[in-house]
Amino acid sequence: MTTVTVKASKTYDIVIGEDLLGDAGNRIRAVAPAQSAMLVSDDTVDALYGDTVAASLAEAGFRVERFVFPHGEASKSAGTWLSLLNTLAALRFTRSDLLVALGGGVVGDLTGFAAATYQRGVRFVQIPTTLLAAVDSSVGGKTAIDLEAGKNLCGAFWQPELVLCDYKTLDTLPEDVFRAGCAEVIKYGVIADRELFARLEGGVADKLESVIAACVRIKRDIVNEDEFDTGRRAVLNFGHTVGHAVEQCSRFSLSHGASVAIGMVIVSRAAWKLGLCPREVYEQILSMVRRYGLPERAAFRSGELLAVMGSDKKRSGDAIFLILSRAIGSAFVYQLPVAALGDFLAAGLEDA
Amino acid sequence: MTTVTVKASKTYDIVIGEDLLGDAGNRIRAVAPAQSAMLVSDDTVDALYGDTVAASLAEAGFRVERFVFPHGEASKSAGTWLSLLNTLAALRFTRSDLLVALGGGVVGDLTGFAAATYQRGVRFVQIPTTLLAAVDSSVGGKTAIDLEAGKNLCGAFWQPELVLCDYKTLDTLPEDVFRAGCAEVIKYGVIADRELFARLEGGVADKLESVIAACVRIKRDIVNEDEFDTGRRAVLNFGHTVGHAVEQCSRFSLSHGASVAIGMVIVSRAAWKLGLCPREVYEQILSMVRRYGLPERAAFRSGELLAVMGSDKKRSGDAIFLILSRAIGSAFVYQLPVAALGDFLAAGLEDA
Repeated sequence: MTTVTVKASKTYDIVIGEDLLGDAGNRIRAVAPAQSAMLVSDDTVDALYGDTVAASLAEAGFRVERFVFPHGEASKSAGTWLSLLNTLAALRFTRSDLLVALGGGVVGDLTGFAAATYQRGVRFVQIPTTLLAAVDSSVGGKTAIDLEAGKNLCGAFWQPELVLCDYKTLDTLPEDVFRAGCAEVIKYGVIADRELFARLEGGVADKLESVIAACVRIKRDIVNEDEFDTGRRAVLNFGHTVGHAVEQCSRFSLSHGASVAIGMVIVSRAAWKLGLCPREVYEQILSMVRRYGLPERAAFRSGELLAVMGSDKKRSGDAIFLILSRAIGSAFVYQLPVAALGDFLAAGLEDA
Repeated sequence: MTTVTVKASKTYDIVIGEDLLGDAGNRIRAVAPAQSAMLVSDDTVDALYGDTVAASLAEAGFRVERFVFPHGEASKSAGTWLSLLNTLAALRFTRSDLLVALGGGVVGDLTGFAAATYQRGVRFVQIPTTLLAAVDSSVGGKTAIDLEAGKNLCGAFWQPELVLCDYKTLDTLPEDVFRAGCAEVIKYGVIADRELFARLEGGVADKLESVIAACVRIKRDIVNEDEFDTGRRAVLNFGHTVGHAVEQCSRFSLSHGASVAIGMVIVSRAAWKLGLCPREVYEQILSMVRRYGLPERAAFRSGELLAVMGSDKKRSGDAIFLILSRAIGSAFVYQLPVAALGDFLAAGLEDA
């Protein structure tokens, strides 16, 4: 078992280990003096682990309520969020009660946003059950729902009280969902950890605890420096700005992780073509994306991606901020005039 | 002109004066490096002052967009909020752009919550045009929308960049709306300022600037001490916990201010009857409420009020926190078991 402590506007632990679900209640009780706990999950995860966590919470003395919604990105909506808030109000949850997010990124982001906004903020705990949520969305306090115009356009910064990452839950993930998480792991290697990147050559199945811990520490260090995403935290968006556009153009038929993989390839290819990084960096990234069975291209033209990138949060006035890497293990922010974005994307999409 | 500086998680000025609207753009430009400004208002206020403020913003170099919704508490909903966020996204507002709330408490609370949540937080400026908004809702960073289950059950803490209080706008307020604001002014006198309370005997029309400044300073000092409402800030709720219940039981046919007036009378009467304050305090409050033509009772029974108070935010587990005063100019938090609330309300409602 590994514990990583995050010191943001709130100090909290990320506990990574095996078989943490059965004892979740006691661990949560230690950080949350609540009477009632709302266990939030999607139908897939709830069927697998909902009863275990609910029983553990009840044993630890919580009144347990459950809110389950259909799995998938379409549920990360204002409608689901509002329904959760209305349910909390109907069950008379107070400001001193607790939300528990059991699931992947959709569950965590949505539950976190509900916790940030119900009665102007209540405590919440994250129990990520996907690799992506474990290494990314459960760390750092970004909560969100999607608007019609785009992903994560509505949200708040709100830190959990505790993150319980039981990596045994990853065993039940469909292969493509697990691979999608690997895209984020590769990202951490590219932006901050050459050694991690090198270790990924041999696969991750037998070293999940240490790989998750490495990723979480990287994110922790970056978030500690820049909780509210005004500077250095931007490097975490490597592959994401273009990836979000890919995801949206696919109408979410491509997963977040697959889209990020494509985004990393497009951006590093464009960077190489435009003389902003060595060819080797692009090739190392492409090779790693292939090794993990992740997609490297999508059938969208630069104009299509461009159309949805206009409302990206990383845009500021007439410039868009992209993350590039000159050498595996490091990244930098590159400010591109919006007017030059079309050419940049075209360079990234062109066949080599 | 009077400037009160608030030092919360963000430092900002509250400027109180005459004829500030025509120069609003330049004052806002000085604190917000935005390209685009979304001017949010309700139909009543927009018709009176929207063009003046929009022109001033445009002169100061902002691209000005406008979002106008029907006046009234019913608009302080998830529906209006979501519509505003979708409009911002469609108009490609970025994280460095700006929202301007022009109006009363509904406009300010809703715009503030949109600012707190659009792309996880953008800047906003408050231009209160009611006495209530000037002395209360525009200070302190509480933003909110209503849920079906109750008022302000959804929201966030989010501080403005600037508050521009042009008290000439209060001239156009309907008499009952102005009086409703006086209820909050009376509250400040009761909880923190005996001298202010005494000055109110002679009316407020000829001393608006100094009265608003006095209220704002009281709230500023309390909020500085307890931005996130975990302790002392509770005293600002004098009359509000019961007042919210009255407001809700009336289905919002009673205004917030009128309901607070009734709440202050009920609570201080109950406190006197139960030996928690001298009779004199109750009588001073009752007399001041009458002087300002505010209602002192509503036709609800204690059971009706009790039913809606169960989901009040001031409840924590089995206790509810009420604010009482033992002497005009001071207040304290009184923790009442929920089981005793019915008797307390009955004592407050009984004829003297």
